[in-house]
Amino acid sequence: MKIISGSLMELSAHLARQTDSQDDAVIEERVKAIIAEVKAKGDQALFSYTEQFDQVALAKLKLDLTEIERGYQETAPEVVQALEAAKANITSFHLKQKQSGFVDAEKAGVIRGQLVLPIETVGIYVPGGTARYPSSVLMNALPAKIAGVKRIVMVTPASPEGLPPGLLAAAKICGIEEIYQVGGAQGIAALAFGTETIPKVDKIVGPGNVYVATAKKILFGTVAIDMIAGPSEVVVLADEAANPAFIAADLLSQAEHDVLARAILITTSQLIAEKVNEELESQLVTLPRGAIAREALDNHGAIFVVEDVTSQFALMNQIAPEHLEIQLADPLAHLSRVKHAGSVFLGAYASEPLGDYLAGPNHVLPTSGTARFFSPLGVEDFVKRTAFISYTKEALAAEKTEVMILAREEGLEAHARAIQVRFEEEKK
Amino acid sequence: MKIISGSLMELSAHLARQTDSQDDAVIEERVKAIIAEVKAKGDQALFSYTEQFDQVALAKLKLDLTEIERGYQETAPEVVQALEAAKANITSFHLKQKQSGFVDAEKAGVIRGQLVLPIETVGIYVPGGTARYPSSVLMNALPAKIAGVKRIVMVTPASPEGLPPGLLAAAKICGIEEIYQVGGAQGIAALAFGTETIPKVDKIVGPGNVYVATAKKILFGTVAIDMIAGPSEVVVLADEAANPAFIAADLLSQAEHDVLARAILITTSQLIAEKVNEELESQLVTLPRGAIAREALDNHGAIFVVEDVTSQFALMNQIAPEHLEIQLADPLAHLSRVKHAGSVFLGAYASEPLGDYLAGPNHVLPTSGTARFFSPLGVEDFVKRTAFISYTKEALAAEKTEVMILAREEGLEAHARAIQVRFEEEKK
Repeated sequence: MKIISGSLMELSAHLARQTDSQDDAVIEERVKAIIAEVKAKGDQALFSYTEQFDQVALAKLKLDLTEIERGYQETAPEVVQALEAAKANITSFHLKQKQSGFVDAEKAGVIRGQLVLPIETVGIYVPGGTARYPSSVLMNALPAKIAGVKRIVMVTPASPEGLPPGLLAAAKICGIEEIYQVGGAQGIAALAFGTETIPKVDKIVGPGNVYVATAKKILFGTVAIDMIAGPSEVVVLADEAANPAFIAADLLSQAEHDVLARAILITTSQLIAEKVNEELESQLVTLPRGAIAREALDNHGAIFVVEDVTSQFALMNQIAPEHLEIQLADPLAHLSRVKHAGSVFLGAYASEPLGDYLAGPNHVLPTSGTARFFSPLGVEDFVKRTAFISYTKEALAAEKTEVMILAREEGLEAHARAIQVRFEEEKK
Repeated sequence: MKIISGSLMELSAHLARQTDSQDDAVIEERVKAIIAEVKAKGDQALFSYTEQFDQVALAKLKLDLTEIERGYQETAPEVVQALEAAKANITSFHLKQKQSGFVDAEKAGVIRGQLVLPIETVGIYVPGGTARYPSSVLMNALPAKIAGVKRIVMVTPASPEGLPPGLLAAAKICGIEEIYQVGGAQGIAALAFGTETIPKVDKIVGPGNVYVATAKKILFGTVAIDMIAGPSEVVVLADEAANPAFIAADLLSQAEHDVLARAILITTSQLIAEKVNEELESQLVTLPRGAIAREALDNHGAIFVVEDVTSQFALMNQIAPEHLEIQLADPLAHLSRVKHAGSVFLGAYASEPLGDYLAGPNHVLPTSGTARFFSPLGVEDFVKRTAFISYTKEALAAEKTEVMILAREEGLEAHARAIQVRFEEEKK
């Protein structure tokens, strides 16, 4: 990987130049056409796109419960056990995110409060194709279950060999009973509008490719969505005492995802920079997805050598990475320097893949700098708030003047009169 | 207003047919052109659009602090006082929404947790034109302040007479020091990309017209947005004991907003339905915005007469209204029947305008049925979450097998090796 040294100002300017302004007008038009077709033709469009894009002539969209059960049975017991262990950790972490509403009855005659209600129906998109992601099923479904979502609908691209057993095992472990074999923009459109077979949902969550992300964006408003995901990224902050082999392995675990994945090391040590590069080379040799990882490192990876820890965090916060590893002495002490990051891994043994699978925090995370404003997927994504107020006549009397003044200040006389009428003798 | 009686099934089918499928492709193209122009030309485009759309040849975009102060001074003292009273209620309500992070250290060697961090820079859109909405400044800015947002940037359309003093008073009361006179899609684009004068923000909140809503939707992902707002609506549930004058006044306060506003009464009493209609007629006569209200009632209003309270709530939940008034006996007892609504007003004296201005819950609410999945604007809109984990070597050892099994199940060997390398003797 290229090693770039410089002052904070130089490196910050370097990073700022890297914002890719991808023109996706062509993709957008294609996705819009797919959406229109699914809206107009329902299931028929889904069968047709599945044949076209996934090379599968489906007999039906929905899996039977027996098919889900069979996938579970066909999954290796140690995989089932590992999924159950992951479920336990994910559940215990996400239970702490659960919020309740509140009631405020501090003022005489006034009750104010907020309900927190589960979203009724949620669609989970699980990527497919050559990949299989049972862990994504857990990460999407378990927070929804904890939030109290009544109906969870999973869609995932059809595959000529049928859906991977591990995926079905994960679904069963989460209690998912509705799985539809349809992916891409057509799968998102089906969830947004509903078809003869697939129910219309209130919110769609889960990562996908650029077609999925574009469809989610276009349909935002018709349904809610979690976030718009881009390529995955990790930033590792390391000092001279960090272990180059660990760092290289973690960078590679990011880079193997995708040729667009971004693996970045920011270190105060030129020596560590060089050693990590050596380790990358030696570890790459035997990596099954080595070609993908190498392309990602070459095109999107970088090692920045900076002057001090302040510069490390300044650059990191500028990137606002999806994953952040802090491989510095006393890592917890640096947590307050983190302004923008999806998920933070503290110390030499909190390796990023641990978070991908088992630790418990969610692995559906904001990418491409959107950690400035988006959050990891969580229980909060599956609830909505409703406010309420109750006022007695006396309580309203105490505040009616201010309401009427403000309504009239805004030129909304009917607003003022709605208050006034409640104090007119003849109207009672 | 038309009175429609029927069974729940009939009325539910009637409602389902009313989904307007507005084709906004033309608006979208126009908004995209504006966005591209602002991105390319910055301030110059803003001056030019402001001249074109608002008929104002601005000398500068940003208001001086002295201009804000002057607006405050020019505002009637009773309006300032009313704004301060509203601020107190809004603040006390929204303080209860404030969340803190958590740390979970229940397992030996494992620390897991979640930070809740304020979004750094937020743009607030305040509608302008012929209207003036000081209350919207409070409703948008105060939750942001409570969340800890460092920089709040307000944009609002320029006006030939200058910005309304009341608006500037509200801004001063909220501690807003950055106000730019630019509205519409161009104002949203300026916030999303930044210009020479206007800073790029992380999130844009606040209601606006269809151009503003479309721009927010298109730029979602580049920035975060609160929600996509449509025309405003109220559903009033009333029984035979409810007061027709109060109900009519509340329906009118909704209807006067906009010819697209939707005011709906759902009652079990034919008599109340008729009396409300009489009251509407008599109250409309002297209403300054009577023509707007009448058009809204004629085209989008309705009175449904249903069999029972179950049907009332079923229809209401189908609509998922922005505002819900429950003018039934013992209204609090019905709260658990509310599945989808933005803000609920309980009893005869919790008139909807009270919530618009003074009670404290937010008046920026999900519209057009999006209360199924969107929430009222609140402190949560101005924060983001960051997860973190720390594992000792021993803690990782206890879970490493499961991580590696799941990584290999997903075909991600580098993920497995990132764990494995930490337990290889020669790598330490």
